[in-house]
Amino acid sequence: MNSVLTVGSIALDSVQTPFGKVEGVLGGSATYFAVSAKFFAKVNLVSVIGTDFPKRYMNMLKRLGINLDGVEQKNGRSFRWKARYDYDLNSAETLSAELNIFSNFFPKIPNNFRNSRFVFLGNINPEIQGFILRQVNSTYLVACDTMNHWIEKQRNQLMHLLKKVDIFMLNDSEARELSEETNLLKAAKFLLLAGPKLIIIKKGEHGVLSFSKNFSFYTSAYLLERINDPTGAGDTFAGGFMGYLASKDRINEINIKKAVVYGSIMASFAVEDFSVNRLLEIGRRDIEKRYRAFRRLTKF
Amino acid sequence: MNSVLTVGSIALDSVQTPFGKVEGVLGGSATYFAVSAKFFAKVNLVSVIGTDFPKRYMNMLKRLGINLDGVEQKNGRSFRWKARYDYDLNSAETLSAELNIFSNFFPKIPNNFRNSRFVFLGNINPEIQGFILRQVNSTYLVACDTMNHWIEKQRNQLMHLLKKVDIFMLNDSEARELSEETNLLKAAKFLLLAGPKLIIIKKGEHGVLSFSKNFSFYTSAYLLERINDPTGAGDTFAGGFMGYLASKDRINEINIKKAVVYGSIMASFAVEDFSVNRLLEIGRRDIEKRYRAFRRLTKF
Repeated sequence: MNSVLTVGSIALDSVQTPFGKVEGVLGGSATYFAVSAKFFAKVNLVSVIGTDFPKRYMNMLKRLGINLDGVEQKNGRSFRWKARYDYDLNSAETLSAELNIFSNFFPKIPNNFRNSRFVFLGNINPEIQGFILRQVNSTYLVACDTMNHWIEKQRNQLMHLLKKVDIFMLNDSEARELSEETNLLKAAKFLLLAGPKLIIIKKGEHGVLSFSKNFSFYTSAYLLERINDPTGAGDTFAGGFMGYLASKDRINEINIKKAVVYGSIMASFAVEDFSVNRLLEIGRRDIEKRYRAFRRLTKF
Repeated sequence: MNSVLTVGSIALDSVQTPFGKVEGVLGGSATYFAVSAKFFAKVNLVSVIGTDFPKRYMNMLKRLGINLDGVEQKNGRSFRWKARYDYDLNSAETLSAELNIFSNFFPKIPNNFRNSRFVFLGNINPEIQGFILRQVNSTYLVACDTMNHWIEKQRNQLMHLLKKVDIFMLNDSEARELSEETNLLKAAKFLLLAGPKLIIIKKGEHGVLSFSKNFSFYTSAYLLERINDPTGAGDTFAGGFMGYLASKDRINEINIKKAVVYGSIMASFAVEDFSVNRLLEIGRRDIEKRYRAFRRLTKF
């Protein structure tokens, strides 16, 4: 079984939405990614937590079979993120982001992780994403995420990183900002020229657009009557996507398309509850059921 | 061959987009609908024009084989619409809307149109939409469109009309406004309870969501690198949708889904140029080609 290495944040989130409120719950890009990918593949996680981090969360991730050898515990407080969503659940209003020990995150990849063939670089400083890549040998498939902050502050470093990345995932406003194109087809062309073989543009409730040199793939989102907390949808998508691909022998057009759909399905579960709660309730059977339902919703 | 009756506006449009500018060109909901539906079925058009209306436009519609027996020419100026789109092509800024002779549009359905089995009520006052319905016998499938103006000013009349309509097409913001639900699944449930058997929610570049009691269908839009003028996309969609259904013996799930895709494909052509220009250039072969391309873009 292939393993997927993910490097990103483990955080304590405080989130308020029109449907509820949580404080100091398990969050962070690496968390959502790992819990989602674990349904399909072995997951090696690299991150950092503070001394205040609840042991029960680490134990829970361990029980899921996620390899936490790369999670360093440092003196200080954990990364804490506080945000609020209004009825328009498409964008979070960040109330505070205390990076704490995460501000000096120079991840060391443990020796037993260095041969991971599938690597996902969560949304962190592109220089550090590059620093991680230099520590892994024999990668087969490298995907990365980013955010508007890095596009604005570290544009050159990000463009440099993209030369070494196979798959670039970002949301539509980020794609527009980085490419300086309002049209998403033009944005995708620009991004494909920057290096990655596959560009995945996430549009939230409007679905996902994927572009490679040889094919494109458009998908709707799996809609829900109620989204309790959209936090982590993108990372959960990435986890399902990478996990599914890692579970396959071949990375070809059909498996990439299915991976996009599995990613969307995983994200649709994640947003049904706060933190990773919903992902902890479901099993592979629930995923397959929703996958089949999605096929019926979109086939013609 | 089934015929489709459409009742709506024929207008002279002046439109400016970042990609060009036209003045006094052929427009109006019934025009876009008819030119699009004509690829699939016979079209009977009911509308009104003024004495200033260029003969060449009427001749052109006639040459396409559209039956204009229901187009009345009245003393006065034609309906004129002036609008501007910014780079965000999703919404028009109406600069002026001179209703002129259209403000007293009480359409009389010619006798030879009264047996049309497929009826599309373009976006006009819901009371007049109802007035039209009372003039047709033996309808088999009635679809209607609306807009925010009628939702705000004639809500009760619109809700009353919906009881007599099989298919209700509207855009996402209209669906939210009429249902008072931000969630589109909840909005669709509300609208299905209001009477129509099928609700079609148009989301522009984000595709189309269709809902019936027995199935739902989600489609992406066929994306373009350049949209020269989004005017008429919704009516062109409706024309392709109704025309395709009218060309089929049975109205079932599979044909409805295909009709939605044909509608989207027709709309993707319409927005490539100003007025109905692009629709006049293409043939059935271009439509089929893009339909197949769309299948490849979305199948998994």
